[in-house]
Amino acid sequence: MGVSGCGKSTIGKLLAQELHIPFFDGDDFHPESNIKKMSSGQPLNDDDRHGWLETLNNLAKKQLANNSCVIVCSALKQKYRELLSEGIEEQTEWIHLFGSFETIYNRINARKDHFMSSEMLKSQFDTLEEPDNAIAINVKLLPKEIIEKIKIELMEKSKFGLLGLGVMGKSLCRNLANNGFKISMFNRHIDGVEENVASDFKNEHNELSKALPFDKLKEFVNSIQKPRKIMLMVNAGKTVNIVIDDLLPHLSEGDIIIDGGNSNYNKTKERFEYLKSKKIHFIGTGVSGGEEGALKGPSIMPSGDLEAYKKVQPFLEAIAAKDGNNLPCCTYIGPEGSGHFVKMVHNGIEYAEMQLLAEIFSILEASGKNPDEIADILESWKQEADSYLLNITINVLRKKENNDWLIHKILDKAGNKGTGNWTTIASAQLGAPSTLIASALFTRYTSFYKEDRVEANINFSTKNDLNLDMSSTDLLKAYQFARIINHNQGFNLISQASKNYKWDLNLSEIARIWTEGCIIKSNLMMELVEILKREEAILKDENIIQTVRDLKESTKKVISQCILNELPISCLSESINFFNSYKTANSSANLIQAQRDYFGAHTYQRIDDASGKFYHTNWN
Amino acid sequence: MGVSGCGKSTIGKLLAQELHIPFFDGDDFHPESNIKKMSSGQPLNDDDRHGWLETLNNLAKKQLANNSCVIVCSALKQKYRELLSEGIEEQTEWIHLFGSFETIYNRINARKDHFMSSEMLKSQFDTLEEPDNAIAINVKLLPKEIIEKIKIELMEKSKFGLLGLGVMGKSLCRNLANNGFKISMFNRHIDGVEENVASDFKNEHNELSKALPFDKLKEFVNSIQKPRKIMLMVNAGKTVNIVIDDLLPHLSEGDIIIDGGNSNYNKTKERFEYLKSKKIHFIGTGVSGGEEGALKGPSIMPSGDLEAYKKVQPFLEAIAAKDGNNLPCCTYIGPEGSGHFVKMVHNGIEYAEMQLLAEIFSILEASGKNPDEIADILESWKQEADSYLLNITINVLRKKENNDWLIHKILDKAGNKGTGNWTTIASAQLGAPSTLIASALFTRYTSFYKEDRVEANINFSTKNDLNLDMSSTDLLKAYQFARIINHNQGFNLISQASKNYKWDLNLSEIARIWTEGCIIKSNLMMELVEILKREEAILKDENIIQTVRDLKESTKKVISQCILNELPISCLSESINFFNSYKTANSSANLIQAQRDYFGAHTYQRIDDASGKFYHTNWN
Repeated sequence: MGVSGCGKSTIGKLLAQELHIPFFDGDDFHPESNIKKMSSGQPLNDDDRHGWLETLNNLAKKQLANNSCVIVCSALKQKYRELLSEGIEEQTEWIHLFGSFETIYNRINARKDHFMSSEMLKSQFDTLEEPDNAIAINVKLLPKEIIEKIKIELMEKSKFGLLGLGVMGKSLCRNLANNGFKISMFNRHIDGVEENVASDFKNEHNELSKALPFDKLKEFVNSIQKPRKIMLMVNAGKTVNIVIDDLLPHLSEGDIIIDGGNSNYNKTKERFEYLKSKKIHFIGTGVSGGEEGALKGPSIMPSGDLEAYKKVQPFLEAIAAKDGNNLPCCTYIGPEGSGHFVKMVHNGIEYAEMQLLAEIFSILEASGKNPDEIADILESWKQEADSYLLNITINVLRKKENNDWLIHKILDKAGNKGTGNWTTIASAQLGAPSTLIASALFTRYTSFYKEDRVEANINFSTKNDLNLDMSSTDLLKAYQFARIINHNQGFNLISQASKNYKWDLNLSEIARIWTEGCIIKSNLMMELVEILKREEAILKDENIIQTVRDLKESTKKVISQCILNELPISCLSESINFFNSYKTANSSANLIQAQRDYFGAHTYQRIDDASGKFYHTNWN
Repeated sequence: MGVSGCGKSTIGKLLAQELHIPFFDGDDFHPESNIKKMSSGQPLNDDDRHGWLETLNNLAKKQLANNSCVIVCSALKQKYRELLSEGIEEQTEWIHLFGSFETIYNRINARKDHFMSSEMLKSQFDTLEEPDNAIAINVKLLPKEIIEKIKIELMEKSKFGLLGLGVMGKSLCRNLANNGFKISMFNRHIDGVEENVASDFKNEHNELSKALPFDKLKEFVNSIQKPRKIMLMVNAGKTVNIVIDDLLPHLSEGDIIIDGGNSNYNKTKERFEYLKSKKIHFIGTGVSGGEEGALKGPSIMPSGDLEAYKKVQPFLEAIAAKDGNNLPCCTYIGPEGSGHFVKMVHNGIEYAEMQLLAEIFSILEASGKNPDEIADILESWKQEADSYLLNITINVLRKKENNDWLIHKILDKAGNKGTGNWTTIASAQLGAPSTLIASALFTRYTSFYKEDRVEANINFSTKNDLNLDMSSTDLLKAYQFARIINHNQGFNLISQASKNYKWDLNLSEIARIWTEGCIIKSNLMMELVEILKREEAILKDENIIQTVRDLKESTKKVISQCILNELPISCLSESINFFNSYKTANSSANLIQAQRDYFGAHTYQRIDDASGKFYHTNWN
């Protein structure tokens, strides 16, 4: 591409020759009507160009199916280029031959059989919208040099950089390579220690044969086509800042950094602002799916500025999981750190979903069932409540080691990496009660005090026989009930953040990208895609209301039975307690307000004064 | 005070004359033994001085009982001065006559009947430990000028400044004045609006007759004796920073700012560091007791550097509530923001204590009792579970307006000012589950969605008859059970913070200053003072263990009955759920660890490997 007279045809032909692929001049593909119009001296308008650009797009697609080709076309406007590369965005390489007005004017008029008025050339320059995703080549160079430069960019440079070759980073590299992208790979290391991680990794996997491995950051950055797209898969926290500061001296204006770790959304906002001041784009993106998801298709939750996102969209969409309609489980979430916020809540919901399964496991174990029997029961729940977590729990329970269940060998101190903690904090800060998530977090914390628990078990032990009056259907219903409350709270938290930060998030679309690829994918999530199109809160949906009413009696039974039998079920229990608070029209918060006014003169509002005026009483 | 030759006797006599009070020369009170020693040319050691300084201290005390006096004494070391002012620290005024070595050497040797070798004078200067709580006067001034300066400092300047005349600030001013302190008072205002707040306030209360009211910050600061002690009683948050920055240009090195608001402990640490760089001391202190407590004696929780605290200690201890042993409910908590942290947890515990009473109220109301009947029941609980909050709840419930109970008129949307939120956040950050506090916070949040609750009440209403099978004794026991768990969690959070931040906090002492003056004072708190001397965790105490075992059956009954009857009791319910988790020797956290390892390769530890090694399994 480039303005008239930049030398497109000459260079295009040379390049095609060099690459042994066909060459096409776009101008040869105008329809009769356009040719007539031009012959009559009338300029083409955008409507005239539309069909022609589609023809070229089809030509490109057809050529791609075989090998490739070089097409020259001035393609001055962004919308022409979008049409030209529609559906083949990732495979299209733009080469922009640029030069100053003077250079090009002189070149044209130096040619014997050409003439272009300065007026006409100026209109070309006025129309030109500079592409930001093209290999830009100055026409001052000799044709030989130009071809050489293009070849290096095309053949040697990669399209995407991945920094951080941990479990997730490695899986994403393979996923990108499997999708046909040429990537650069880099891992931080201390000299002499862990060297050659990238090249060793490359050698282990056939799909990485074209990937470029690096041990030096500068070489890694230089190996990537501009505007560079560099995805960080490093530990959340300070490491991200360190890596960004290491990268900065090597980057160029307009390059894009993507943070794919579980970073705190507040930090993502800070980094976004910081990098903006350096003219570098920053995309904070949640990536869920664990090791396997990252390899085969994760759920991806990117945020930042939309323009930058569009440049990385083809990569992220290609590697993402596909939903039931074959749409990628990747969507632009919103501005700032909204992608990391949404990922954080995803993990919060995950904490509660895991804890609910752990409580179910406790109850069934207490009632004398062995892990295989428990797995059988959970297996039978698939029809009603299928989910990824249910499935892996079944597999976990069945896993044996030397004829004993492996689950019995695992120490009961639950770890955490911060997202459940952050979700609880966000919930407290935003005034959106996510009580099941908080409960799941705190139960993990309590599990950590193993020695205290063993001591307390002795101090508080009772010899009551277990007397659990419930069926496994009751238990399934309580589980379903709690899951609905958990999802209601999680999406409500997202909704509150969206309002508070003015992010304008699409809850249904978020549910959609969670239907595949991620840890909390489930049949319930698939239902929520439609429900959240209709309602802003899950508990306001008519079908859900009916379901909850149907599940409630069993839930009450299960929870009260567990409490009478001293089984620890914080998360299940919180589901009914939240539900009961939520459906109380007149709560005892009036007493709280009276107490606050009593000792602190905090004032209160009255039910008989709709103006919202605040009153103070002298209570003594 | 001052080195030999500074002119103490001359100035002392003039001052006593001017003030019409007796004058004493310290040297006249040496015992026989000291006189002999000095006559024989031997220098006195500190042991020799001890009795003599005690004599002067007794002299001062005796004089103070009548009127006052001037005593001169070189008092070069801090420990001499501490002895001299022991028991009368607040009433003692130190005047330090200072000058350069050269000035004083020349002055002494210019006197006809005096001679002091440069050697001897040098040893005086070497011994001198400069006081930081004295009126410092340069001896270069004329005696007349010196007397004038001292008079201004003594007679016109105040001892303590209070900035911020809201509900709490005003009460503290009156409390300080009632304790005999001359104070300066200032309130921020916009010119033309809210002017004269301080002087209007002064005019309303007799006890403030000697207080100095100001509308201009500079005058306010200048009216306070150095090192200035200025207590901020302004809204927590940005206002504190603004006020500090307003104050800074007017302050002198060594002045002390005390923040008595509910500031976030992290901010207190930041401000401490910031002011340290400006050579200003910063004391962050919690003040609990509401309006009435602030006036009659609050519980005070100061932190910061101990040296600075000692200078404000007499003021804070004087205005604090007194415990059962007549000791002030004020103690140095620890470094940094530990005082505000402890106050924050105080408020967190308060949130849960209030919520528990609100839930009891709900249950009794649901069972058909009116507020007076409920108040009667709570009245009967005083013997077993007396507390300030129980008492005010009884008063609230009995309060009527036009023959109806006022409680029925109050809108059930509970407000909050941040400390419950921060406690929940700290709990999440420190890994110390304070589930009752979190639950109380989240219940306030849920109460806030009034419109949703009314809608949900319609959607989820059932017509089941209430069938609550429990006695009011059961309810009392459940209440007591939950309070023990709440206090256990609150003190555990403090204990975790103390370990994490290396604050070395004294839990028993914290319980002690909470036995009077504050909102959560109770009979239980009085028991905890002794328990926390013996045990680091409340639930490890033998008596508590027995109590909890006794209360447990009723608690289980109450909670299961409430769940079956759909009464919202998140906080009560969380008490038994935490207890059940806490006393589970082998929890289902093993399943959580297996799930985490399954999808994220997060690894797990094993019960059959005490080395703590981490394992990963290929679960598929």
